[in-house]
Amino acid sequence: MSAKASAGYFNFLKSLKSSEWFWWYWQKEKREPYVKFMDANYPPGFSYEDFGPLFTAEFFDPNQWADILKASGAKYVVLTSKHHEGFTLWGSKYSWNWNAVDVGPKRDLVGELATSVRNRTDLHFGLYHSLFEWFNPLFLEDATNAFNTSKFPTSKSLPELYEIVTKYQPEIIWSDGDGNAPDTYWNSTGFLAWLYNDSPVRDTVVTNDRWGAGSICAHGGFYTCSDRYNPGHLLPHKWENCMTIDRSSWGYRRDARLRDYLPIEDLVKQLAETVSCGGNLLMNIGPTHDGRIAVVFEERLRQVGSWLKVNGEAIYGTKPWRAQNDTVTPGVWYTFTPKEGKVNAIFLNWPVSGILELGEPRAKPGETQVKLAGYRELLKWVALGEKGMVIALPQLTPQQMPCQWGWTLQLTDVD
Amino acid sequence: MSAKASAGYFNFLKSLKSSEWFWWYWQKEKREPYVKFMDANYPPGFSYEDFGPLFTAEFFDPNQWADILKASGAKYVVLTSKHHEGFTLWGSKYSWNWNAVDVGPKRDLVGELATSVRNRTDLHFGLYHSLFEWFNPLFLEDATNAFNTSKFPTSKSLPELYEIVTKYQPEIIWSDGDGNAPDTYWNSTGFLAWLYNDSPVRDTVVTNDRWGAGSICAHGGFYTCSDRYNPGHLLPHKWENCMTIDRSSWGYRRDARLRDYLPIEDLVKQLAETVSCGGNLLMNIGPTHDGRIAVVFEERLRQVGSWLKVNGEAIYGTKPWRAQNDTVTPGVWYTFTPKEGKVNAIFLNWPVSGILELGEPRAKPGETQVKLAGYRELLKWVALGEKGMVIALPQLTPQQMPCQWGWTLQLTDVD
Amino acid sequence: MSAKASAGYFNFLKSLKSSEWFWWYWQKEKREPYVKFMDANYPPGFSYEDFGPLFTAEFFDPNQWADILKASGAKYVVLTSKHHEGFTLWGSKYSWNWNAVDVGPKRDLVGELATSVRNRTDLHFGLYHSLFEWFNPLFLEDATNAFNTSKFPTSKSLPELYEIVTKYQPEIIWSDGDGNAPDTYWNSTGFLAWLYNDSPVRDTVVTNDRWGAGSICAHGGFYTCSDRYNPGHLLPHKWENCMTIDRSSWGYRRDARLRDYLPIEDLVKQLAETVSCGGNLLMNIGPTHDGRIAVVFEERLRQVGSWLKVNGEAIYGTKPWRAQNDTVTPGVWYTFTPKEGKVNAIFLNWPVSGILELGEPRAKPGETQVKLAGYRELLKWVALGEKGMVIALPQLTPQQMPCQWGWTLQLTDVD
Amino acid sequence: MSAKASAGYFNFLKSLKSSEWFWWYWQKEKREPYVKFMDANYPPGFSYEDFGPLFTAEFFDPNQWADILKASGAKYVVLTSKHHEGFTLWGSKYSWNWNAVDVGPKRDLVGELATSVRNRTDLHFGLYHSLFEWFNPLFLEDATNAFNTSKFPTSKSLPELYEIVTKYQPEIIWSDGDGNAPDTYWNSTGFLAWLYNDSPVRDTVVTNDRWGAGSICAHGGFYTCSDRYNPGHLLPHKWENCMTIDRSSWGYRRDARLRDYLPIEDLVKQLAETVSCGGNLLMNIGPTHDGRIAVVFEERLRQVGSWLKVNGEAIYGTKPWRAQNDTVTPGVWYTFTPKEGKVNAIFLNWPVSGILELGEPRAKPGETQVKLAGYRELLKWVALGEKGMVIALPQLTPQQMPCQWGWTLQLTDVD
Repeated sequence: MSAKASAGYFNFLKSLKSSEWFWWYWQKEKREPYVKFMDANYPPGFSYEDFGPLFTAEFFDPNQWADILKASGAKYVVLTSKHHEGFTLWGSKYSWNWNAVDVGPKRDLVGELATSVRNRTDLHFGLYHSLFEWFNPLFLEDATNAFNTSKFPTSKSLPELYEIVTKYQPEIIWSDGDGNAPDTYWNSTGFLAWLYNDSPVRDTVVTNDRWGAGSICAHGGFYTCSDRYNPGHLLPHKWENCMTIDRSSWGYRRDARLRDYLPIEDLVKQLAETVSCGGNLLMNIGPTHDGRIAVVFEERLRQVGSWLKVNGEAIYGTKPWRAQNDTVTPGVWYTFTPKEGKVNAIFLNWPVSGILELGEPRAKPGETQVKLAGYRELLKWVALGEKGMVIALPQLTPQQMPCQWGWTLQLTDVD
Repeated sequence: MSAKASAGYFNFLKSLKSSEWFWWYWQKEKREPYVKFMDANYPPGFSYEDFGPLFTAEFFDPNQWADILKASGAKYVVLTSKHHEGFTLWGSKYSWNWNAVDVGPKRDLVGELATSVRNRTDLHFGLYHSLFEWFNPLFLEDATNAFNTSKFPTSKSLPELYEIVTKYQPEIIWSDGDGNAPDTYWNSTGFLAWLYNDSPVRDTVVTNDRWGAGSICAHGGFYTCSDRYNPGHLLPHKWENCMTIDRSSWGYRRDARLRDYLPIEDLVKQLAETVSCGGNLLMNIGPTHDGRIAVVFEERLRQVGSWLKVNGEAIYGTKPWRAQNDTVTPGVWYTFTPKEGKVNAIFLNWPVSGILELGEPRAKPGETQVKLAGYRELLKWVALGEKGMVIALPQLTPQQMPCQWGWTLQLTDVD
Repeated sequence: MSAKASAGYFNFLKSLKSSEWFWWYWQKEKREPYVKFMDANYPPGFSYEDFGPLFTAEFFDPNQWADILKASGAKYVVLTSKHHEGFTLWGSKYSWNWNAVDVGPKRDLVGELATSVRNRTDLHFGLYHSLFEWFNPLFLEDATNAFNTSKFPTSKSLPELYEIVTKYQPEIIWSDGDGNAPDTYWNSTGFLAWLYNDSPVRDTVVTNDRWGAGSICAHGGFYTCSDRYNPGHLLPHKWENCMTIDRSSWGYRRDARLRDYLPIEDLVKQLAETVSCGGNLLMNIGPTHDGRIAVVFEERLRQVGSWLKVNGEAIYGTKPWRAQNDTVTPGVWYTFTPKEGKVNAIFLNWPVSGILELGEPRAKPGETQVKLAGYRELLKWVALGEKGMVIALPQLTPQQMPCQWGWTLQLTDVD
Repeated sequence: MSAKASAGYFNFLKSLKSSEWFWWYWQKEKREPYVKFMDANYPPGFSYEDFGPLFTAEFFDPNQWADILKASGAKYVVLTSKHHEGFTLWGSKYSWNWNAVDVGPKRDLVGELATSVRNRTDLHFGLYHSLFEWFNPLFLEDATNAFNTSKFPTSKSLPELYEIVTKYQPEIIWSDGDGNAPDTYWNSTGFLAWLYNDSPVRDTVVTNDRWGAGSICAHGGFYTCSDRYNPGHLLPHKWENCMTIDRSSWGYRRDARLRDYLPIEDLVKQLAETVSCGGNLLMNIGPTHDGRIAVVFEERLRQVGSWLKVNGEAIYGTKPWRAQNDTVTPGVWYTFTPKEGKVNAIFLNWPVSGILELGEPRAKPGETQVKLAGYRELLKWVALGEKGMVIALPQLTPQQMPCQWGWTLQLTDVD
């Protein structure tokens, strides 16, 4: 995956309403706030399916989306083609009358976004796909049979997977939702064999690790382990931190307030930590029922993009360095740029003293050079014995700062 | 079928809007009045599926339906469980989110009506089922493959058929809609073998003749041949005249006017003709989107019932006689009651002279007796040579008439 | 009124739902079935006003309406321009955003029907108008002030009345709904003075008696006294029997069943009784939310029309005779045709004996002639002393009967 | 007004859709984008009134609103009680069925917000009210009569004004929308006489200048002159800059993007400029149809609040100084704090050199002190001849900065 997308980080969960687990919480768990909200605002007997025609997407403009996503600095986009509700954002043959072409938007949201994304340089397109569906009666029947029958994978999930690969040739298949069924039930091995050997994307596709009970964080392509996984140390396997700008929901929540969204400082922190530890960051936003990216999401994405404009060299195309974070100064995360042999030290707090001490690098007087990303002149520094160095930061006014919320020191010729 | 339902005659086509072929005419044939109506009254992009939540059935009262159907004199009721649109009136596992439990009424219309119908004495319950579905993408794919693939019957039509038989145990399976595909595609033989040998209704079920291209009017149970089939002569095979009270639609049409409905005189005529020729009559009405039987239908059904109260002996349990209609007086139709050896002559016009001449019966002076159904006294008659007789009808005021719109003479000891 | 409309008999109450008092029963009286129905089928907080956009009238065809009304034999049509809910069927300046042009149909229903009605020969157009409005806050404020203030008549009801007279020039103003306020509050005298002296309809208009508390059955034009008023004897003042084909509702009720509608026999009876006693009959039907006359209403109206085709001479242009109903044979009602000096005896039951005895007429042997309306030949009769006669009815088959449900004997030269 | 609200700055325009002039642009001017949007997304004949039931406000939480408004540092809140569309956010008697209690939210939005706002310390409540209504037929009739009739003010606008004053006792009446009619037509003088002499708010209320054609910027209370009025110099009359965070709309626009909102830097600039020139700032946000303050608005408001936490002394309770902006350094705006005799210099750009030159103040060596708001220590400075001074700013890291986007120098003992 490295070549293609070392910092790409987006995912989209279509959202008819509130949390993307709305249906489940409301109808299966019968959580009080969900039940109360529905009772107060909808007629008795209103079902989740009745939201279908209300998912209008009249403002959906895939070019606008792609522009924002591109501006965010992302290298790839992962669209949720189908979540656990079973509603497909493309006109699936296997989900007749429960897809975005037959119901609601009446548009092929997957195809339209794929085209717009691919029309942007250096932006790749992938698809999230949920295997199981909460309320699909065929899945429930199989579950009742302890997964000794396989009506559901045979008639629904597998045909769908073949369909999206053939139709949209995604570069990522981000699988999810095993429903506690083993990969033998899902026939994941069969599908993946086809995907890697015979499918139209066999030479380009990457996948994740969610292909059946027990496979997560153990088998497959890049590991996702858990939502918002961010271990803080190096992992021996490719991995991804899939997280959300909304602190607690993948789907758009109309009732979310400012405090429910991560501030840009936290997003930069997540990005630095994840990349330092060898992971990719997938930063989710949930679009609205009328097809928009809410302005607060646009703002966060553009803020990340503006940060990456200055600090992108410390992210894209980098590898983990021997140390991930600094041992002396907290909030300093390292990456390594192989091409130029540079070590990048991303520091999240500007020291009051104007002096930054780094405990890890072994600098070589006369050889090592220190640069602040986005600032023209070389910085002065002093080595501290065998390991460690002290760096004098320049004095800058707010307008002179190359960026806010985290800065990068580029160190050459350090070990 | 004879034992159980010699004059039962109902069918129900659920109707979201207008003719039951609305979707096809509008979207496939793009007939102007349909396109215009939709353009004038619905937003652009409104799809047939969007009618789903508008099919509310809030007034659906299966007991009221069953009362009306019982009052009509019908012996069996056939509910359209699924028409060519694919929407099932029961919560089919194989039609998730496109059925009346998930969408619209949120009720099991099939099950509720089955219970109510069976709670009435001597009223039987059957189900209409369309094999093909106009717009089901799996059916369309099979059709494109010249029916050499069978995704659709495998995953949809056959599982559904097994499901309704097992779940509702219908006494009639009224199959329809071969979609120009052969019975081998539909695997009708396999299903019928199970139905007659192993199913829970193997001892009671009857079926019709619409099980694949070429089978209509040629194979299967009772023949239906074509909609509104009424040959006017005896057939060598059991058959049914399936017709509609609305002259041109099976589904309810909001814009139908009085002249669009058959008057009671015509309904009595259809019944007499059909039974004389050995057929059953299936008289269709289309319910409204809110679950009602329109009052004009209720009126017609109760009128038929009032006629049958007087003339039922000439319909129920009868067989065709050697002649079907009279050769001398038009509008006279014969049936035969084996139990009592009676010949019934249903005459649709009361002769101005008060004298009715019948050209067919061979009466035996001193033995043959002639009665007017609903009138106490025997009628006077005279034989006309070898064949034929002249009967003196009584003089009756409107209130004395045993019925309007057709009367029955019961002749004993005639050949 | 006599010259213009002796048997005209129609009224239209637009109906969004069920009984035309729906709003009141539901929100003010909180009757259980109404509250339950709303709770079961609509979201909490759904208000009567929310029905506005659902009153679509997309099938409203004023020419079709006018054809049916003309075919019914009516001489005038009275449209409910505004009922107690305050919603005007024309685009009133004084009912902005609560009228059929701004909300719902987006059409001038009053104007369209006026034109269509007037395009039919011998069919006149009038308007029903409710003075008070259940929930209008200005009316409620006046009521709280014991009608010592008159915000409501000043800004709403009076301007509206002037508006409809000027704009549509109705030949009848059928006023209703005094809200227990006196005519001085309503300023009825002022309005009527203008109407009869200065308005564009001053030479043609007629009105009724509902112009303020205490005026009903006591002052004004023709008396209406109470809904479904049918005294059974002669009144000294012009009057009208305003009744409904639906036994209990003026508005259309979706859930009405066949038994809720008067059969044609009862309608003929009402007509005969009312006209015999010097009244006009106003026969109400309630149209549907989508602008149709339900088929059962069309049927009843056409049945009345077919009866009037044969018996119209006993209705139109007649006056009460000295006796209203017969003293010997029940169900016989008399009218008098001044032009030809004929006495009409409408008899509702055909005697089994074929002999009809009339106790009232004084016939003159050799002069008096007796005819059955719709039957060519004169009937034989015998006088019974000073008063009374016995008439031999012809023997007719059902097809020969000139009509069903009531027949007219025309007697010349009787006293 | 000064005592009570020198920097209060909010206004709310309820928005059913897009710009608050949507109805006018769509139906009256027939602007293409509006017409196209409606044609593409709504059925033919859909009217503005049909948006009524879609204005649901189910998430409206007046306490949440008041918290955000309070956090913004505003001193008063002005709610748009009725805009030119005539829809009242309270249940006006004079706008029956076209107000938020009868239609849509079914809540008294004015009353609920009034209570919540008044429950916050030092936050006042006012009401915007539009005199004219674009499409009110009574106003249009008066306009056709060249305003020689006054049906509309008599029955609508004046009763409404008396109603809101009596019911909600607003501390501001922010009048708008003269519809090109003179104040004599509106009877503004009569109303204002009552307001200031006899109304329940006679001792507290303030009003603006929009009370009839020609009065704006010439008569009345504080002057508003034009939307987004910001003259850049001192005015001889109290005035207000009413502007919008959305660059071009007062109503909420679903399709607005990030670039359509003013960044916080511009808001601070507007605030500094306005207060320096003696004006109040009214900063408008448009809530959503479901009753929310969009997160981007919440963010901007809280950012302004955080700025005022540090710099509020330069805003609240200040007066214009003798100079409004500096003559040497652009982007410096002065205010004067009478209580402490302090001059406040708000500078919008931090000088790269760390040295700020002010051309206007006359400092007194040994007496004058210079402080940076939010920074503990006194700053060093040097006087420049008779007028002007040079100030050394401290060197601060981003975290040390007391605020971003504009800073305040507090100068004592300067002339």
